[in-house]
Amino acid sequence: MDNLYIIKIGGNIIDDEEKLSLFLRELASIKEKKILVHGGGKLATRVAEALGIPQQMVEGRRITDAETLKVVAMVYAGFINKNIVGQLQSHACNALGLTGVDGASILAHKRISSSDYGFVGDIDKVNTSLFQSLIDVQNLVPVVAPITADKNGQLLNTNADTIAQEIAKSLSRHYQTHLIFSFEKEGVLLNADDDSTAIPQLSLSYYKELKSSGAIFAGMIPKLDNAFAALGAGVHRVCIGKAEKLQQLISKESGTSIVHE
Amino acid sequence: MDNLYIIKIGGNIIDDEEKLSLFLRELASIKEKKILVHGGGKLATRVAEALGIPQQMVEGRRITDAETLKVVAMVYAGFINKNIVGQLQSHACNALGLTGVDGASILAHKRISSSDYGFVGDIDKVNTSLFQSLIDVQNLVPVVAPITADKNGQLLNTNADTIAQEIAKSLSRHYQTHLIFSFEKEGVLLNADDDSTAIPQLSLSYYKELKSSGAIFAGMIPKLDNAFAALGAGVHRVCIGKAEKLQQLISKESGTSIVHE
Repeated sequence: MDNLYIIKIGGNIIDDEEKLSLFLRELASIKEKKILVHGGGKLATRVAEALGIPQQMVEGRRITDAETLKVVAMVYAGFINKNIVGQLQSHACNALGLTGVDGASILAHKRISSSDYGFVGDIDKVNTSLFQSLIDVQNLVPVVAPITADKNGQLLNTNADTIAQEIAKSLSRHYQTHLIFSFEKEGVLLNADDDSTAIPQLSLSYYKELKSSGAIFAGMIPKLDNAFAALGAGVHRVCIGKAEKLQQLISKESGTSIVHE
Repeated sequence: MDNLYIIKIGGNIIDDEEKLSLFLRELASIKEKKILVHGGGKLATRVAEALGIPQQMVEGRRITDAETLKVVAMVYAGFINKNIVGQLQSHACNALGLTGVDGASILAHKRISSSDYGFVGDIDKVNTSLFQSLIDVQNLVPVVAPITADKNGQLLNTNADTIAQEIAKSLSRHYQTHLIFSFEKEGVLLNADDDSTAIPQLSLSYYKELKSSGAIFAGMIPKLDNAFAALGAGVHRVCIGKAEKLQQLISKESGTSIVHE
């Protein structure tokens, strides 16, 4: 099976024009099959404020009401996605931007929970044949914005980590999938403030040990739980590390590799 | 050769939620191969104003400066495009949204003229193999926003009529292309205020006659010049008519058909 790299970049990189541009140049230089999934960044909040749309929070989370969803669609699918696709095209990387509604690429449903987060999606199904065709037939690099849609075409704001992971899991029947979470840190750190403490390899037993001793930064725990779940669901490799070191993350010279025992 | 309908809707329909929704329901019911090209509407101006971006005009035309281009990308490619794709998906029409930068689908260059209109594109080339593959291999309905890109991935604001026409011309080697301009009038009118004066068939000689006698509304002349040019460049049929009557435009029961002698 061919290798396929599913690479996620977060909002911190997206908000930093220079870092984003360096990252995209490096991404374009990777010749293997790949999919980029990007997060949202802070622009949506600024645009919503400028448009006078009040931003409501529940338990520290933003609620995606109908008006906020319009802003999210504009900023994520319009501005950020096309900016990224344009930069990749400038480096001769044939990118094509997508949201989950396009070609019904990622089917989701509106989250049902005790708190109402509004138009937020939980993923049901990735349209693997569409991604395969874009990648294999047309030699394109899909660039996925963090928006999915339900079966009625209703757009849903969706976590980019989850999108990357679901795509990696679904495509692992057709490719040897490598799921790479790139962010602002060197990897999973023993000391959250010290990049030199990145763990090169994290096995499930070591992770459990670190978790029970409280040595893992709480914010990393959902990401890591998901990473182990992805490995269990057929993803060949999960790696977490610094966006600026994308090449080394791919060549395993940097970042934390999440591994079976 | 298969029939392919390239259908353009303008800003007036896009700004009217109810009309747009009826139009999209009708579009979804057309089972033949099709591409939708949409214009921009007024939302971009409202968003630019809310964000405090001054809108400059030259000779009655808006200048697309760098800040305005960001707004155009957000509104056209983000909000309008995804709203349309979502509605089509809700009617079981497998739409996929695109701009010219996605998959390098429409290559353009920044317009050079005595007046500087900013980031405005003139089209050089349509990526016919991408459109063919989307339509024939994946059975998708491309939905094209009025944005193209140059070879460096620079986004360019581009007239939707021109995009529709260039797509129709380029794809006429592979399909029997029908170019349908749908707007708020019944067709080409002998009296601009009276919808009952729509001309069913307009030949080049009749058009020249009407033009020289001043009987054609000045605003229609560039559209019609382009329509005849499209026919000359291989497009099978050009038709201009009311968006609400899309089915009849296709079955030739409504609108003005632009014909050779």
